[in-house]
Amino acid sequence: MALQPTLAVVGATGSVGTVMLELLSSRRNVWGEIRLIASSRSAGKQLTCRGEQLTVAELTPEAFDGVDVAMFDVPDEVSLQWAPIVAARGVIVVDNSAAFRMDPEVPLVVPEVNREAVQYRPRNIIANANCTVMAMIMAIAPLHHEYGLRELVLASYQAASGAGQFGVDTLHDQLSKVAGDRMLGSRPGNVRQAVGDDLGPFPAPLALNVVPWSGALEPLGWSSEELKLRSESRKILALPALKVSATCVRVPVVTGHSIAVHAVFGSEVDAEGARQVLRNAPGVILVDDPESGEFPMPIDAVGTDPSWVGRIRRAMDDPRALDLFVTGDNRRKGAALNTVQIAELVAAELAR
Amino acid sequence: MALQPTLAVVGATGSVGTVMLELLSSRRNVWGEIRLIASSRSAGKQLTCRGEQLTVAELTPEAFDGVDVAMFDVPDEVSLQWAPIVAARGVIVVDNSAAFRMDPEVPLVVPEVNREAVQYRPRNIIANANCTVMAMIMAIAPLHHEYGLRELVLASYQAASGAGQFGVDTLHDQLSKVAGDRMLGSRPGNVRQAVGDDLGPFPAPLALNVVPWSGALEPLGWSSEELKLRSESRKILALPALKVSATCVRVPVVTGHSIAVHAVFGSEVDAEGARQVLRNAPGVILVDDPESGEFPMPIDAVGTDPSWVGRIRRAMDDPRALDLFVTGDNRRKGAALNTVQIAELVAAELAR
Repeated sequence: MALQPTLAVVGATGSVGTVMLELLSSRRNVWGEIRLIASSRSAGKQLTCRGEQLTVAELTPEAFDGVDVAMFDVPDEVSLQWAPIVAARGVIVVDNSAAFRMDPEVPLVVPEVNREAVQYRPRNIIANANCTVMAMIMAIAPLHHEYGLRELVLASYQAASGAGQFGVDTLHDQLSKVAGDRMLGSRPGNVRQAVGDDLGPFPAPLALNVVPWSGALEPLGWSSEELKLRSESRKILALPALKVSATCVRVPVVTGHSIAVHAVFGSEVDAEGARQVLRNAPGVILVDDPESGEFPMPIDAVGTDPSWVGRIRRAMDDPRALDLFVTGDNRRKGAALNTVQIAELVAAELAR
Repeated sequence: MALQPTLAVVGATGSVGTVMLELLSSRRNVWGEIRLIASSRSAGKQLTCRGEQLTVAELTPEAFDGVDVAMFDVPDEVSLQWAPIVAARGVIVVDNSAAFRMDPEVPLVVPEVNREAVQYRPRNIIANANCTVMAMIMAIAPLHHEYGLRELVLASYQAASGAGQFGVDTLHDQLSKVAGDRMLGSRPGNVRQAVGDDLGPFPAPLALNVVPWSGALEPLGWSSEELKLRSESRKILALPALKVSATCVRVPVVTGHSIAVHAVFGSEVDAEGARQVLRNAPGVILVDDPESGEFPMPIDAVGTDPSWVGRIRRAMDDPRALDLFVTGDNRRKGAALNTVQIAELVAAELAR
């Protein structure tokens, strides 16, 4: 290994991969060579990273010769197939898919919350958390350490880019179709007519609508996204009995997942105490002054690193419960940034 | 009094008033004369109701001579001043403002839930519930009767028209400004720049955003809308100790308020039993087949009478809790329709 480890970015041409390259270009550099890898469809493309022009290589086992750390942002089934192949070659894989998150031999890491978990990785794979979990857990973890978390009731407001660039393009296409017709949204079905069949990755029109569905259908009517909020929160916080109920909803926002959180703790809470905890929490920005119009919103959080937290209130009927609202950039901390942060933890370890 | 009572519509030219006139024109007629009343600014306007051309009269005490029932849709402060004046003249006032809802001598009525409450009205005033409360309570009341409600955790997805026609116009104006620019929503502040200062009745841009605020600032960081969800639910369901936590959020939807509901009951629940209760509930339509893309959404619920309910799941970690999603037309059942229904209850009583 060189003094600075070699990094591979797998899925470099995708929506999150693009943000990974931006982050690698703007953060303090810890890497020697950076190698870009993607499917055969994208191989040969030229991309810029750290001011260098790089050619995308095709995803083959040999492409990882000499690589120390690989960040994967590819569909679950591609990770499921390729991460073990790459890990078996001695590469430490940081994977942003859902394929390995619940594997007991794969740590699920949010550096501000459980950075120590990165060290136990018998499969040479480290998982990155779901983008909706991420925004929320950044605010909840420091509150848990102060008050002892018992239960979460969550409702999400998820952006189109959670479904990739196809989701973003679909939302923009639909907005162009509905803008300018002032009668749309006032009669049943007229938005459906205007939007037509171009639903993209969504089960219904997203423009002028909210769609209470995200992910795949799981047993008992749950969506996969809702179950991830439960299982991943439990794993990251090391609270296997945490009670979690979530309803996941897609909204016509480009980027920035928001979550309305009702959190019940083991001890009494107070709103000002919670604000003080969050003011001191890493990766969190407190925006909580409704009188001045300050609350967390996607149009402000997009393109920034932290989770934006506000609307902090102690529940009227439960001195142990807090209500709050969180927004985070689902492509940055929710995906690319956290993956890069984990990879940097590994780089620091390798450099020792 | 004539065989058919005389009705006055106060605020006839407003956003909700317009829906009232549509409903009076399409429902089985129980009214003799219908009189339209508004502020001096709108007096003299011609409007159509039941196929008749009517001239809007100015709001004066004498305008109510011979009137039996008056439906008010005006700002709180106008109701506060005028409803008692009109009621003192023997007119039964059905008021859609928040001015009297929590007055113990004013019943707060949702006919499908507590129609008997209409009879105790010592002030001659009957109040109509808040539009967000309405969509939710239609689904929750029948479940309460089956399982015994203890607690609600609510997150709302509220449409622009909840802030009146000014809200709708503002959303359409903003959509026209942001549509067509595919970079908007991907960088911090660029939606704010595109929208400019035309925020209308909202504290922040609504297009491509969600705004976790609705109503006025109340103590301890709560919004008035959030506190209404608590106090009005308690009053309508006659559950003064009901635990309620709500976070109210405005979304870029024209009409149709949605609510993610986590409801905890006194006895064990099951999702299929809850679906059966809701199939038989008046004023409710069950849309709960995620596999076929069937869930409640504003683009389908707008312009219809019932509350659309779906995404019904028993909580994974609490056999006494249900998670569900509700959407209702905030201008119809959430405002005009319920007011008309209450007025019709009074008309039936007067006809006996």
